[in-house]
Amino acid sequence: MFITFEGIEGTGKTTQIKKLTAFLEEIGHIVEVTLEPGGSRIGKELRKILLNMDSTDITGQCELFLYLADRAQHVGQVIKPAVDAGKIIISDRFADSTIVYQGYGRGLDPKLLRELNDVAVSGNWPDLTILLDIEPEIGLKRAMTRNLQENKMQAEGRFEAESLEFHTRVREGYLTWAALNNDRIVVVNADQTPDEIFEEIKAKVVERIKGDYVTNG
Amino acid sequence: MFITFEGIEGTGKTTQIKKLTAFLEEIGHIVEVTLEPGGSRIGKELRKILLNMDSTDITGQCELFLYLADRAQHVGQVIKPAVDAGKIIISDRFADSTIVYQGYGRGLDPKLLRELNDVAVSGNWPDLTILLDIEPEIGLKRAMTRNLQENKMQAEGRFEAESLEFHTRVREGYLTWAALNNDRIVVVNADQTPDEIFEEIKAKVVERIKGDYVTNG
Repeated sequence: MFITFEGIEGTGKTTQIKKLTAFLEEIGHIVEVTLEPGGSRIGKELRKILLNMDSTDITGQCELFLYLADRAQHVGQVIKPAVDAGKIIISDRFADSTIVYQGYGRGLDPKLLRELNDVAVSGNWPDLTILLDIEPEIGLKRAMTRNLQENKMQAEGRFEAESLEFHTRVREGYLTWAALNNDRIVVVNADQTPDEIFEEIKAKVVERIKGDYVTNG
Repeated sequence: MFITFEGIEGTGKTTQIKKLTAFLEEIGHIVEVTLEPGGSRIGKELRKILLNMDSTDITGQCELFLYLADRAQHVGQVIKPAVDAGKIIISDRFADSTIVYQGYGRGLDPKLLRELNDVAVSGNWPDLTILLDIEPEIGLKRAMTRNLQENKMQAEGRFEAESLEFHTRVREGYLTWAALNNDRIVVVNADQTPDEIFEEIKAKVVERIKGDYVTNG
């Protein structure tokens, strides 16, 4: 089973992935956690280029293809092997990020982005995607505080440095894209306490695991 | 005007580009020479990943998207600005390399590769492409000697290390692709002396420049 977490910066994806991992392991699953960009060896090098504040000269098309390169390697080397081995693999961001950030955020055509992602994921779309939704003002404030605390503003702050208007487009894009893919993407209100958020996520994941169990016998 | 050079390793592209540049400058043009992968700042980092012998774990799809990322950045930052400034820009390899190496060489669909390249080049296809054609046995022997002399086998030898069968598929792929695009790609026999090869190239380039002059007034 392949689960992804999506949402703008500062929605608490990392915290929720930790909680979900602990819960799934407790009920007997083998869980692997990964992320994009940077889920593979080559991906780590691409992550440096993509998130570095020095990469302001990167063109929209180049950025897009770098995300797709990272994803193709991630799917081939990490995600597909984990699914094939019967694990539950959880990724912090995946193809929906590209469709939403490059499409709704930067103005590329979401339909073309969907097709390009079909090449990159080679059939390995997630079984379930959790979209953590929050007002950009709140999310960005959280992300900035975290980056300053962890001293990674220069190394990974390129998206946080985008305008509030950009993040508002991204947030709305996520909601539109979730509505278009409501068989796979569930929206969770991230403006609650971590425990309240997790209760909602847990219910969705358990429901999906049971559904899988019924479907696959 | 945008001219590209194509062909397997060891066909003498570098030598011919030098000769063509000298000739074009002599007759009054401003010439800029560039290459792929690695024609832009970010491209240089991608070139290291793409050509390094350590990148044996790279998937076919990841490799493809890295070339497209390199190309999109190259077009946006280097090629289009040069063409807009009225220069003649000459690139050692371009989109045809991806179509031939990843398509005919690695078995991806050339039609899909053409579409993906359309995204990467955003309308900036070359005006003229010189395909230097040679038997892979001869070309590879030359490339190996050069890499050993220049001590760059480990850093940039990943393609030279492919099998002779692979290079034979690539060579045949180039000839097929050139036949399908014979309005733009001209094939030159590279199993001649450098001066003989250059005379053929010069004739083709001069013909194309005159054609441009007539067309554009």
